[in-house]
Amino acid sequence: MAKWYIDDGSQSDVVLSTRIRLARNLKGFPFPNKMNADDAKRVIDTVEAALEEMNYTFTKIDLPAMTEEQRRKLVEERYISPAFASSKLPCAAYISEDENVSIMVNEEDHIRIQCIYAGFEDKKAYDLIEKVDGYLAERLDYAVHEKYGYLTSCLTNVGTGMRLSYMVRLPAIAMSGASESVFATIGKLGVTVRGMYGEGSKSTGHIFQLSNQTTLGRRESEIVSELGEIINNVISKERELREALFEKNGTALEDRIMRSWAILSNARILQSQEMIQRISDVSLGISLGIIKNIDSKDINAIMITASPAHIIANYETNEAVERDVIRARIVREAFQRR
Amino acid sequence: MAKWYIDDGSQSDVVLSTRIRLARNLKGFPFPNKMNADDAKRVIDTVEAALEEMNYTFTKIDLPAMTEEQRRKLVEERYISPAFASSKLPCAAYISEDENVSIMVNEEDHIRIQCIYAGFEDKKAYDLIEKVDGYLAERLDYAVHEKYGYLTSCLTNVGTGMRLSYMVRLPAIAMSGASESVFATIGKLGVTVRGMYGEGSKSTGHIFQLSNQTTLGRRESEIVSELGEIINNVISKERELREALFEKNGTALEDRIMRSWAILSNARILQSQEMIQRISDVSLGISLGIIKNIDSKDINAIMITASPAHIIANYETNEAVERDVIRARIVREAFQRR
Repeated sequence: MAKWYIDDGSQSDVVLSTRIRLARNLKGFPFPNKMNADDAKRVIDTVEAALEEMNYTFTKIDLPAMTEEQRRKLVEERYISPAFASSKLPCAAYISEDENVSIMVNEEDHIRIQCIYAGFEDKKAYDLIEKVDGYLAERLDYAVHEKYGYLTSCLTNVGTGMRLSYMVRLPAIAMSGASESVFATIGKLGVTVRGMYGEGSKSTGHIFQLSNQTTLGRRESEIVSELGEIINNVISKERELREALFEKNGTALEDRIMRSWAILSNARILQSQEMIQRISDVSLGISLGIIKNIDSKDINAIMITASPAHIIANYETNEAVERDVIRARIVREAFQRR
Repeated sequence: MAKWYIDDGSQSDVVLSTRIRLARNLKGFPFPNKMNADDAKRVIDTVEAALEEMNYTFTKIDLPAMTEEQRRKLVEERYISPAFASSKLPCAAYISEDENVSIMVNEEDHIRIQCIYAGFEDKKAYDLIEKVDGYLAERLDYAVHEKYGYLTSCLTNVGTGMRLSYMVRLPAIAMSGASESVFATIGKLGVTVRGMYGEGSKSTGHIFQLSNQTTLGRRESEIVSELGEIINNVISKERELREALFEKNGTALEDRIMRSWAILSNARILQSQEMIQRISDVSLGISLGIIKNIDSKDINAIMITASPAHIIANYETNEAVERDVIRARIVREAFQRR
């Protein structure tokens, strides 16, 4: 299996990932928040039967059999949502062989199809998710309202049921104090700005999630192209400010970047927050040509492989200190291999 | 000329330098604090004439012709004292060809002979200074009191006029919280503890100056052997605590050391204080076998060559930011050369 995050995506100096998810529900079943275990199981069976016929292989993830860390590991890889990881209702997840598509059954909606790619890959993600959704639509009886479109558990998703979100790294916009005005501008254009870990989370390492606010009254393809254009403008602004920042205060910026690079390459204890922040500096250094022996793609992958649940699950430790020691080693070895 | 501080001294993992100075005054002249310019010039002439006959070559340092930075550079190299660098009275300094001996004329006393070596070198320093002092004693009329010994401007120096001082790096004693008790113990044995820059200065980078408190009523050779024994005990204690610290909390210590090493090797802006502190960590790392590509002797030399007045005098800059940039480059290149 090829994890999406070790892939080389387009514009990876700014865009960590492009993700589209569609919320779909089945006719004849209550929404998951009103559903009993029996309904839930029947929904799983229905969806699973449809998936089995498909010419695009999915692997079922046996969530109830997993430890909490294994589930959180899937959250860190962004195959499932945090809420889904601790769901009490019978639920199931399916991940495609190429790991670009995951399907959650009985999350907030009966079906959540999600497609994710490293970098800025709106077209690829949209094409693939349309294919999966189209296939399922032929085999399942989706709850659709003639006028409003897809019906969903939460009102904000009614319509296309689509959320397109970009995980972006905006160090220059943040450092030069432009974030407030940039976010206000794109907010007026219908873009929601969130921290790295979704709703209500604060930004760490200058990482933000930018996504469409509304799904009602517009076509899916419109959302994709409109949001894509806005993101492209944000990318341009970020690049422009990176150059400006470097021109204005190059030595201080280089100092910050080189110190972070040096620490990531040599620390023996490394907390997750510090790693994310320092990786942001290094990422900026790569895009400015200051750091040459490692690329954006690699550090984005490191960030996920060295995240807490990955370490707990892969190294069978739950000691915070030991985790930080393992993280330091993973990061150090990745940086020194280059 | 071979600077004393680029030399390889004994026990340089703890001892940066051994310095002995003798305070001597000439009969028939008022002490410098009561002296007029004319007397001062005659003292200079008298001492200079004696030095010229000597079979150990001294170079006269023309202090009045020097810029403030050039004088401060000599202070950083510890050839002259800070007070001497800004003296208003006619004064002169002489540095021996091997740069182990320097003589200040008209500092607090008419003559201050000083001998300095890298590392723990009490015997070498004592032998050499005795030779120079003995030679001068034959040619000059020292002010000596039959009962008290050498007469000096300040009462604390009456007797042998000798101060023997060791510059030591005591990171483990400091970090493990033992400094108070260690310093109290050696204080009772007649040892004065000062910071890096002498009287009243605070310790930076865990560097301390340990010296004899009294000079009265004891022989010079006694002071040397007694203080040497105490210093040897402090060195043992420091080494013991380094091992203990490493055993107890090795990873945290290694993390601290490697981060400092990484920053010294990569920073683009480096303030003097930070350099001294991080060099202390690296020095500890060398003695624990964690850092292998650089040795104590080298880093002690870097510390002096990258000190403020050296940079100002050698690079003709007085901008604080530029100085920090130059310092970072000096240190980085020294670290990366290894």
